[in-house]
Amino acid sequence: MTERTVFLLSDQTGVTAETLGHSLITQFAGQNFRQMTLPFIDTEDKVREAVRTINAVRASGAPKPIVFSTLVQAEFRAILKDADCMHLDIFDVFLEPLAQELEEEPSFEAGRAHGMSDIDAYMKRIEATNFALANDDGGISRNYDVADVILVGVSRSGKTPTCLYLALQYGVYAANYPLTEEEFESGKLPDFLVKQKDKLFGLSIKPERLRQIRKERRPMGSYSTPQQVRFELRETDKIFKRYGIPHVDTTEFSIEEISSRILDSTGVDRRVRP
Amino acid sequence: MTERTVFLLSDQTGVTAETLGHSLITQFAGQNFRQMTLPFIDTEDKVREAVRTINAVRASGAPKPIVFSTLVQAEFRAILKDADCMHLDIFDVFLEPLAQELEEEPSFEAGRAHGMSDIDAYMKRIEATNFALANDDGGISRNYDVADVILVGVSRSGKTPTCLYLALQYGVYAANYPLTEEEFESGKLPDFLVKQKDKLFGLSIKPERLRQIRKERRPMGSYSTPQQVRFELRETDKIFKRYGIPHVDTTEFSIEEISSRILDSTGVDRRVRP
Repeated sequence: MTERTVFLLSDQTGVTAETLGHSLITQFAGQNFRQMTLPFIDTEDKVREAVRTINAVRASGAPKPIVFSTLVQAEFRAILKDADCMHLDIFDVFLEPLAQELEEEPSFEAGRAHGMSDIDAYMKRIEATNFALANDDGGISRNYDVADVILVGVSRSGKTPTCLYLALQYGVYAANYPLTEEEFESGKLPDFLVKQKDKLFGLSIKPERLRQIRKERRPMGSYSTPQQVRFELRETDKIFKRYGIPHVDTTEFSIEEISSRILDSTGVDRRVRP
Repeated sequence: MTERTVFLLSDQTGVTAETLGHSLITQFAGQNFRQMTLPFIDTEDKVREAVRTINAVRASGAPKPIVFSTLVQAEFRAILKDADCMHLDIFDVFLEPLAQELEEEPSFEAGRAHGMSDIDAYMKRIEATNFALANDDGGISRNYDVADVILVGVSRSGKTPTCLYLALQYGVYAANYPLTEEEFESGKLPDFLVKQKDKLFGLSIKPERLRQIRKERRPMGSYSTPQQVRFELRETDKIFKRYGIPHVDTTEFSIEEISSRILDSTGVDRRVRP
């Protein structure tokens, strides 16, 4: 099927354009998209260069490219009008009505969104990341007292990437503790976790999916047998029930979804915002 | 100054609404915003509940709330029209023109953007995160052969969070190696790094900023003295020059910016897209 190029164009990182564009194009499952990010388009020359890149795709006989952009400066957006493409820019559409409502002129400064405008936010994210790393996998340097949330679940249920995502995206202090033989045999959580009961949040996962993930990791041994996987998940479920731990089934969810559901369910505040 | 509430409302995680809203409101530095994410608003009842929440803020005498939303279903957006707010929705604005250009009706299915529609992408991000963790800080389990990029720089220059961000956001395999006394004294990189010269990318940082970061980490000792910090950065710069390692000064940059600049500069492909 003919490929259509989608440009994610930005005067800064391109993260906003990528997120915006991705949300929209995933609504059209019948298409074959090729995504291309053009970040740091922050001079007139670079905008003209981008126009040439877009036009070259079009000139090759491909379908009209789609360009999602987040260009703060109106004159840059005007140059893009020369490109033979469908051009959608969030500032074009939303900035003027916002300015009217707020009764303030926009600063038109590039890079305010994902820039270092807030050193404090940068430090918070770094510190949260360090916290997640130091409190990963039930390691010895536990600082559960300052944790916002402590994820519990079996090996490969998604604890570590979720903790890291919560730290990097939201500055949230997320620790995690793996449930293993010790907990399954006693049916109990260790005392230092019971003390933090209100911070516990469980990750569950369907047996088939867990097997699939574990097999990619370690194909041999009991780690990924149906028996072992089912046993661990059954015991985990008992522990969640025994202590009344809220939990989410990660089987069908992306890291973003798991993270959002944890924040939504626990009420933990975002310390920083993306 | 009067606080104005900005709602980031979504039928899914809220990540797109947060990113979009943040990009726009950071253009208005004279305002005092309070951001509130309302994720998983995916039934009519939840939309009505959200309308009540928004109206309650307004009824308290606060300025008219601003609502950025990413609601796929038109009937949900219609219900939101009852809220006493300024409502900006990207699907309202962009979906119809896109559908015309693509000659395809949108699926109107919620959750396609940050959902598990692509298990393959999930696995890639998890594997990339595991790679970053296993290849963090020059640890012993080095798999530099399969790395996409290897970050080098002094302690606290931002290597670890950048590697994790590259993994979680883009599925990129990023390792990192800290430059320490050994490299500074010899002025050389170890052989296993020289072999991977084309994958090396340097993080530099201004002395004052590095001191500030290190002091928060470890206030005592030589680690954060002006002399030590300047010495390390001077020697690092020599190594970057000696081996022709491209690098970026992280002082003024957020994790997103550092990551985008690395991808832009190295040409490393995103394995997945946000």
